[in-house]
Amino acid sequence: MTQAAKPHTSADGRWLNLRLAPELFAADVPVAEGLPACIVVQQGRIVWVGPQDKVPAVYAGLPAHEGGARLATPGLVDCHTHLVYGGERANEFAMRLAGATYEEVARAGGGIVSSVKATREASEEELIAQALPRLDQLLAEGVTAIEIKSGYGLSLEHERKQLRVARRLAELRGVTVRTTFLGAHALPPEYAGRSQDYIDLVCRDIMPALAAEGLIDAVDVFCERIAFSLAETEQVFQAAQALGLPVKLHAEQLSNMEGAALAARYGALSCDHIEHLSENGIAAMRDAGTVAVLLPGAFYTLRDTKLPPIDGLRAAKVPMAVSTDHNPGTSPALSLLLMANMACTLFRLTVPEALAGITRHAALALGLQHEQGLIAAGRPANFVLWPVRHAAELAYWFGHKPDCTVVRQGRIARTGG
Amino acid sequence: MTQAAKPHTSADGRWLNLRLAPELFAADVPVAEGLPACIVVQQGRIVWVGPQDKVPAVYAGLPAHEGGARLATPGLVDCHTHLVYGGERANEFAMRLAGATYEEVARAGGGIVSSVKATREASEEELIAQALPRLDQLLAEGVTAIEIKSGYGLSLEHERKQLRVARRLAELRGVTVRTTFLGAHALPPEYAGRSQDYIDLVCRDIMPALAAEGLIDAVDVFCERIAFSLAETEQVFQAAQALGLPVKLHAEQLSNMEGAALAARYGALSCDHIEHLSENGIAAMRDAGTVAVLLPGAFYTLRDTKLPPIDGLRAAKVPMAVSTDHNPGTSPALSLLLMANMACTLFRLTVPEALAGITRHAALALGLQHEQGLIAAGRPANFVLWPVRHAAELAYWFGHKPDCTVVRQGRIARTGG
Ligand SMILES: [Zn+2]
Ligand SMILES: [Zn+2]
Repeated sequence: MTQAAKPHTSADGRWLNLRLAPELFAADVPVAEGLPACIVVQQGRIVWVGPQDKVPAVYAGLPAHEGGARLATPGLVDCHTHLVYGGERANEFAMRLAGATYEEVARAGGGIVSSVKATREASEEELIAQALPRLDQLLAEGVTAIEIKSGYGLSLEHERKQLRVARRLAELRGVTVRTTFLGAHALPPEYAGRSQDYIDLVCRDIMPALAAEGLIDAVDVFCERIAFSLAETEQVFQAAQALGLPVKLHAEQLSNMEGAALAARYGALSCDHIEHLSENGIAAMRDAGTVAVLLPGAFYTLRDTKLPPIDGLRAAKVPMAVSTDHNPGTSPALSLLLMANMACTLFRLTVPEALAGITRHAALALGLQHEQGLIAAGRPANFVLWPVRHAAELAYWFGHKPDCTVVRQGRIARTGG
Repeated sequence: MTQAAKPHTSADGRWLNLRLAPELFAADVPVAEGLPACIVVQQGRIVWVGPQDKVPAVYAGLPAHEGGARLATPGLVDCHTHLVYGGERANEFAMRLAGATYEEVARAGGGIVSSVKATREASEEELIAQALPRLDQLLAEGVTAIEIKSGYGLSLEHERKQLRVARRLAELRGVTVRTTFLGAHALPPEYAGRSQDYIDLVCRDIMPALAAEGLIDAVDVFCERIAFSLAETEQVFQAAQALGLPVKLHAEQLSNMEGAALAARYGALSCDHIEHLSENGIAAMRDAGTVAVLLPGAFYTLRDTKLPPIDGLRAAKVPMAVSTDHNPGTSPALSLLLMANMACTLFRLTVPEALAGITRHAALALGLQHEQGLIAAGRPANFVLWPVRHAAELAYWFGHKPDCTVVRQGRIARTGG
């Protein structure tokens, strides 16, 4: 992988001859589109951003990086992924297209159970080796912060392994990773018919142990008729609250469970999927400041026809984020830019909404709004230089990996043309 | 761009330790999946392919290339693109999402007219500079042959310029390019209300002149209520036939014009789009050996709901190809692998159908079936080594550019991990 092979050099200095799109990305920066702008980086942090002819004299001696009139945006933020797992489900994908029934797929070892099995069987090193090429696909297009969930281990030992791998990926690639404990993703096979027992185990044993090890940044639940009930979800939220951990929810994907309203009562960072979100849920999210995370890759893969209530969210001014939902079953997606395109094409987000969705609002969904998602003085240097004329091109083209320059955690992680 | 920067070294030698997926890709090669296979290349051509332990002794002295147990497939073939044009239409994309009417977009200079204007204004060098990054996105994922249409010039001078650029791209990247003259793409503004006059010009002046210059490999028409009629289409086909040029057709995309049956009567290489193709059209294509080219990128971007008649095509054994239809208006797509995924997800092609669609059947749609789309002795060396375990992964993941090795026209064009 390109990222690993190159030494990561410091991004300190003056990044000259940039273009900004202030209405989309920069905070309080008086730079008209088209005017050359400059970002000054010192000790890995942005210390100044603005018109190039206004750079304070005190920075004049810093090394210069030529921006080549490229468009600068904040680093992208992928705020909902299941990136760490064993195996893949390509065979299941092929079988379903060839007409296999769910039963036949299950008999052939398919479905989420197969990912749980492969994840449990894999070592930490094997999970890292399998996740790295996927992570590198996302990093290549300027992702500087990513959320990674557990939820394919479904036992203390294997959930720990998944979360430790997520932390290791952060170190290996110098990328900000937020870990989310999703022990309540599915019922492990050994607990078949004993859902309450498993939720008790999650709340009393697994979550406290992993929290004590510093492996959990947030807690998530898959609240759905085919997963966990509203009461079970609330039990998990209470356990998280007792540990001081923020919550979020896989909510209203296949049906309206009123999970969003429950999550909002617990001050959730985000509610994700939300195709079946009700008016009541929108109002609760608005009042709680909860972000709506839209996942068009799963909508597309499942050939869903029930659109999330974009107009209602927009009217209520609920911030909308857009993410890959990368996972081996319902969204084997490896491009956040493609998700921006799908959010526009399938969900009719405007281009500024889609771009805020993969930057500013995604950062908010992770509680990283002070570090990520905006080019502004005082923040860690996380930005991308794109070889495009208009910001809209980031959502317009699809299926590409632009030849961009990526500054991640104050270092030049990738140099593009 | 990576492709341009590296010297292209010869691929001659023994490519060892490969995996083949015989049911998908290789002709008459007795290699079980999992068994190490070998491809032998001499003077840029495949001279032998088969199980590694059966390589004839005469090749033992050739240099060895380690395949690393990667999956070998033929080079991909993108058989329908409008890759050469001036500008892009990102602003129009953004305006439509923001609620602009077609009239407002037109007033702001949008629509196909804006691409015609920008193409006419651009020099040959400018068109090359704009097309190269797009071409490189496709080449990076193993495209070894590509069709490029004219149709944004709409005059002798500017159609010539587009086709010359297509030929230049072939030289610059060492890739097989088939040029298609699409003078009958849209009515140029200066011929408004004089459709017949323009078609006469195309048939009597522009096409013969460009054919004489060796710039035309095939002739295409956009046959649709909003473009050219069935009678105008036939006039263009007759002119092409008189010049000995094969034809193809943009057929039945928005309505059933019975264009496919007409095209089949002229022995068309392919009929493309075909969402509204009739039973009659299917039968005509079957009898003529015409390929059905499916374009899921345009279907997706237009949020079309009318599916092409896949079951009917399958039952009639009409070969189905899959292509990007890359163009700035209805399919700014830059990944043929993503199109394979969309063909599966949106059109329910099986994985083998989708993979044949971007290789063997796409080659057939270009009349390149003896050179491209299959790994077999006697052909130019065009193949790709993929870091995947199963061929199905090529259609399963979406939004990635796999880190592949590409052998194109007998040279190593890209080295992956
Ligand atoms: Zn998810
Ligand atoms: Zn087309």
